Parts: sequence; structure tokens; C-alpha cells
Amino acid sequence: MAPTKTYAFRSPGSKAEVESGLDFRPKFDADGLIPAIVTDARSGEVLMFAFMNAEALGLSMETGIVHFWSRSRAALWKKGGESGNVFKIVEMRTDCDQDVIWLRVTVEGDGHACHTGRRSCFYRLVPVQGAAGETSQLTLAPDTDDA
Amino acid sequence: MAPTKTYAFRSPGSKAEVESGLDFRPKFDADGLIPAIVTDARSGEVLMFAFMNAEALGLSMETGIVHFWSRSRAALWKKGGESGNVFKIVEMRTDCDQDVIWLRVTVEGDGHACHTGRRSCFYRLVPVQGAAGETSQLTLAPDTDDA
Repeated sequence: MAPTKTYAFRSPGSKAEVESGLDFRPKFDADGLIPAIVTDARSGEVLMFAFMNAEALGLSMETGIVHFWSRSRAALWKKGGESGNVFKIVEMRTDCDQDVIWLRVTVEGDGHACHTGRRSCFYRLVPVQGAAGETSQLTLAPDTDDA
Repeated sequence: MAPTKTYAFRSPGSKAEVESGLDFRPKFDADGLIPAIVTDARSGEVLMFAFMNAEALGLSMETGIVHFWSRSRAALWKKGGESGNVFKIVEMRTDCDQDVIWLRVTVEGDGHACHTGRRSCFYRLVPVQGAAGETSQLTLAPDTDDA
């Protein structure tokens, strides 16, 4: 698991280069991280959200398997490396500012993306068009575990 | 546009409370922000990604219209307030850690979520299973502007 390779990406350029150009210039934050949104390639459901450093991004691009940077463990994290629920990348995109990554994936193993055993980390609904604050109650989302 | 209300949410509790509970305990980062993923309620396409502070989150919940916190302008930002491309919330979710918000929306106005005039901010593909680094080239994604 020890990283043996470093990845250097182009630095962010002008606004036009970043927004309109086709040179990949990922913008990492002050901690060297870029947010990554993961959706189910088939259903469009958001499965999880995490961060990548340059190494995780480079490895994901090269291997087609999603790697993150675990902020809590301060370590490279091959998602599903232990559970078998590896994320195979169907498509990877970046946004206008090149400061976010969107990954459309298929989930291997038992198909559960969340460490709680659920298909998606987003299993609870936040109330909308009601009072917002300390009394707000979540509700469980409909079960989408039909994979 | 001057904020006249402050929103207080419950503080994050124990791991069990946060992951399994139905009390909404949004976890804001050190800057008081929580990431928000916006997808098209119909297609599942990721439209954009931005941040909310407590006020933006509270207003979004109360009004059913997406509000963000603009980090560049350091101001509350009603998305589409100028362009008319307001995001109406169909569903709002949070994740296992309650530190991310997912919004499924319909886009009002001309239906373009991105300030570049595109339907989604994610209009470019990152190459997968090829070399990653300073030579990586993006490609334009298929045009999904069929709303």
C-alpha cells in the first residue's frame, strides 16, 4: 500500500484556461485536497462524498478504481479495499472551476457504498419548507437497495 | 437581502446519534460551512457543487429554494437570484456523518445551472485508465442540454 509514485498536475491557470480549456488543471485546496462526488452510474443516486489528494486522483485516473484521501486516518484510501465494495469508474468529470471531481461508478462486492451497510450514505431526508433549526427532524429515505 | 434571522442547529453528538439518529445535526467545518451537492431531480446529473453556512442551509430548508454561501464574495447567495435560474428543491438529504448536503432540484429560468451558460458545471470528462499528470487532457462531455 505504500505509495511509490507522486503525481504532478498542471497548476490552475487563468480563468479562461480553467473554465474553457482542455488542459486538466485540478485545483487542490489549502490542504492539498479536492472534493469528489460519487454517483451510481445507473441510477444517478449520490452514493458518497469524500476527498482526494493528488496521489488519490492520479491513482483513480490510472487504475479506473476510486481512491480517496482519508482525512481522519491521514492516509491513502482505496475505497472498498477491505470490504470488497470497490468503486469502478464509468466516467470522471470536473467542473467549471476544476475544483471538484464527479465520479460515476459501479459498486463491486455487495453493492453497498456506505460503511453503515447501506447502498448510499445519503439515507436520510432533511425536511424542506418547514421550520429550520434545533428541532429539525430527519426521516429515513425510501429503501433503494434493489441492486 | 440583509439577513434578519440566524439559524441554530443542534451540535453534532455521538457517532450513534449522528449516524443512526433522526435529529438533524449538520456538521459545519472550521469555516462554518457544509458542502452541498446539487443534482437534477429528473436526470440525476450533477449540476453544481457549493457550500452553505447555517443561514444558507436554514433559508433553503424554510423556503425550498437553494441558497449558498459564496466564499469568493463572502456573502449569502440565492442561486439564480440574478439570472432567474433558481433551484427549487425536490428533496434534500444528508449523509451518514451529517457533514454533506445533497439537493435534488429543478432548475427554473432557462434551466442552466452553470455561470458559463451550460446546463451543468460538469461539462468536461477527465481521462480514465490512462496516464495521469501534467499532460492529462479533458474532453467535452456529450451535450445534455435537452431540457
